[in-house]
Amino acid sequence: MRGYLGRGSVFRTLANISAMTPRPVSEPRPDEFGRPSAHAPGSATVAVIGDGQLARMMHTAAIELGQSLRLLAGSPDASAAQVCADVVLGDYKDLADLRRAAEGCDALTFDHEHVPNEHLNILIANGIAVEPRPSALIYAQDKLLMRQRLKELGVPVPVFAEITSTEDASAFWAKTEGQVCLKTRRGGYDGHGVWFPESEEEFCQLVSELTAKDAPLMAERKVALDRELSAMVARRQSGEVRGWPVVESVQRDGICAEAIAPAPGLDEKLEAQAREIALKVAEGLGVTGVLAVELFEAAGEISVNELAMRPHNTGHWTQDGCITSQFEQHLRAVLDQPLGATDATAAVTVMANVLGAAEDPDMPMSERVAHVHQRFPQAKVHLYGKTHRPGRKIGHVNLCGEDVAETRHNAQLAAGFLVHARWADQDADQAS
Amino acid sequence: MRGYLGRGSVFRTLANISAMTPRPVSEPRPDEFGRPSAHAPGSATVAVIGDGQLARMMHTAAIELGQSLRLLAGSPDASAAQVCADVVLGDYKDLADLRRAAEGCDALTFDHEHVPNEHLNILIANGIAVEPRPSALIYAQDKLLMRQRLKELGVPVPVFAEITSTEDASAFWAKTEGQVCLKTRRGGYDGHGVWFPESEEEFCQLVSELTAKDAPLMAERKVALDRELSAMVARRQSGEVRGWPVVESVQRDGICAEAIAPAPGLDEKLEAQAREIALKVAEGLGVTGVLAVELFEAAGEISVNELAMRPHNTGHWTQDGCITSQFEQHLRAVLDQPLGATDATAAVTVMANVLGAAEDPDMPMSERVAHVHQRFPQAKVHLYGKTHRPGRKIGHVNLCGEDVAETRHNAQLAAGFLVHARWADQDADQAS
Repeated sequence: MRGYLGRGSVFRTLANISAMTPRPVSEPRPDEFGRPSAHAPGSATVAVIGDGQLARMMHTAAIELGQSLRLLAGSPDASAAQVCADVVLGDYKDLADLRRAAEGCDALTFDHEHVPNEHLNILIANGIAVEPRPSALIYAQDKLLMRQRLKELGVPVPVFAEITSTEDASAFWAKTEGQVCLKTRRGGYDGHGVWFPESEEEFCQLVSELTAKDAPLMAERKVALDRELSAMVARRQSGEVRGWPVVESVQRDGICAEAIAPAPGLDEKLEAQAREIALKVAEGLGVTGVLAVELFEAAGEISVNELAMRPHNTGHWTQDGCITSQFEQHLRAVLDQPLGATDATAAVTVMANVLGAAEDPDMPMSERVAHVHQRFPQAKVHLYGKTHRPGRKIGHVNLCGEDVAETRHNAQLAAGFLVHARWADQDADQAS
Repeated sequence: MRGYLGRGSVFRTLANISAMTPRPVSEPRPDEFGRPSAHAPGSATVAVIGDGQLARMMHTAAIELGQSLRLLAGSPDASAAQVCADVVLGDYKDLADLRRAAEGCDALTFDHEHVPNEHLNILIANGIAVEPRPSALIYAQDKLLMRQRLKELGVPVPVFAEITSTEDASAFWAKTEGQVCLKTRRGGYDGHGVWFPESEEEFCQLVSELTAKDAPLMAERKVALDRELSAMVARRQSGEVRGWPVVESVQRDGICAEAIAPAPGLDEKLEAQAREIALKVAEGLGVTGVLAVELFEAAGEISVNELAMRPHNTGHWTQDGCITSQFEQHLRAVLDQPLGATDATAAVTVMANVLGAAEDPDMPMSERVAHVHQRFPQAKVHLYGKTHRPGRKIGHVNLCGEDVAETRHNAQLAAGFLVHARWADQDADQAS
């Protein structure tokens, strides 16, 4: 029995085929080392700024679409650079490097949000199709601007305020009765740049220290959340938008540990609202490519936590549990090509992250993978080619199944073995 | 409703985890152009001899497994070379080039059968894990040896004979009452190297001409076949074997045009027999990696037509319709790692090849893809980055569905549009 499949949905479609005419195709040219960087004749080349696992996984999607990527990478052994033919070495904060990467490409996109918008505006002025555009990206870069804009759009966000002084801090403490989450406006991720002060004194002390370091700050009411959700959509310039089933995102220590698709037991009205929010954000902010809207669910209500305008950790399950993966969809969207179906292909898909342990076990990773494959032949292991660091995202496991509890249990066991080289359900001395 | 899923099957599993200990991992080194060819730390590197679409699609599987490939490619713009970081340029018939590609790799495998076995035996003597081994490959290279060996194993093959003279030809003509298929023993593919003489004179004439060119020949009884099937399995050195559901393979002009998974209406006993044959061939010939056994179905009986010891066109459907694709499975098998589940994930999956038309339409391929994606958001388009040539395999479309006829119809329409830039079900002047 197939059960509930958590159908994807088409929010907008295009009647007019002429809107799909692709951009002209780029010419080959030699790479850094004089190797002729051949791309498929007649197909598009997307430049990706960034060399992490998101770029790496975009490349697998590009290959199957008959395309290939050009990377702007910081080093030749970075996650994505290991597996791409056309790699430009450089700094994503350097305009000349960005220009080299963009030259002759059909679209330019990102695996992170840290490229200076002033550079991107220059590239756009020079005719480069930067997707998503700085006019949208600014809301994924600045948490305060994002909340201000979402509030204008009528999208629910927790009570928030800009914090520039200890006076602001005290006022916000009083307003929220001490339920405070302090955030840097820019650059935070995976729990970095987020604090939960337990007293007004601690809050003011933090604000003093951070403002002294010129860190722009904001605060929002700490939500007593039941769980976190993620609503993802893709939008292309011509206007088509498609959404994936809403997933539950399980965080540990501020880092995504699991995603469960579709979100188990999610109220239909809340699911519809989550989808509607993602659509409204994508259209209201003019996002192109994939958009992840991270949501809080609390007491039967949802509000927006964060936005990401790129493939997102909570969308990795789509590689094995969905007709069109977020990586393929992102490429299609940034090239303004028609989007793919987003129906789930299994009753439940669980994604469990592989996060570097405090100490890396002696067993080589390839042997850990062998153990996982031996025990779970149905597990799909995705590794990023990264060296170990405690807490670092080095891979994930996708597992499809019929039953949420069983599928979660097995996905956790599999990811746990890749981290610790032992099975969480066996005594250490029984582990093989 | 999920319907019949055509479950994959485990033929052999391993109780002993120690058999899975992977081989040691290779060190990075610079490529042809001085670019440091970084591979993922702690993961395996597989060298692939060949630069076609099979190598290209192995690379997408390698990336997700945290591995990467080293290619021995004939040119930097070949299908797989476009998308791989570590490319050795050279000739697969040259031992020195093979050595350069093999150096430091954990296993060496192929996207074609044309590497001289004497070179491979030298590599093996030098400690390289060549998979599959020449002792198996010889049966995928020589159609006569294959049939002789299969007959010994008790595997059904059509009546055959070695043909070295017109006397042999006349004798075989008489024996088969003129039902003759003449084949070159080596090097034929996609209908090349196969003839169906319509008279004894024509047969003898062909044999005279071909033997004069030193082409080793064999003949077999022409089978009045109902259809062709393909039974695929993967086997690793430690002995584990897993098979995929048996598919129907639709040929046009001697070239695979479609694969339908699972084979519609296949008799249960025949399916079991097809699986049993694939297992027997894999074990009997000591195949490692993926094995495709192409079968004739005629009057309720099956017999072996050809073998391929690598991922195969009739297995491309596994990319989108199966838990483990043939490309991932091949890499796992040649590294002697535990194999993945081979259950189908859809009731039916149809693969339709994109074969270059007599004349290439003016519409750029990326625009054709856009039209296909617009009409069939559920279609998975795979392109190989190849230039047009009439009849050349330049891509394929996978489509999953519930109903065989509808799914075939749509897959044919999609592949047809990629070939002809028009819809077969619309008048030319209605096509958009």
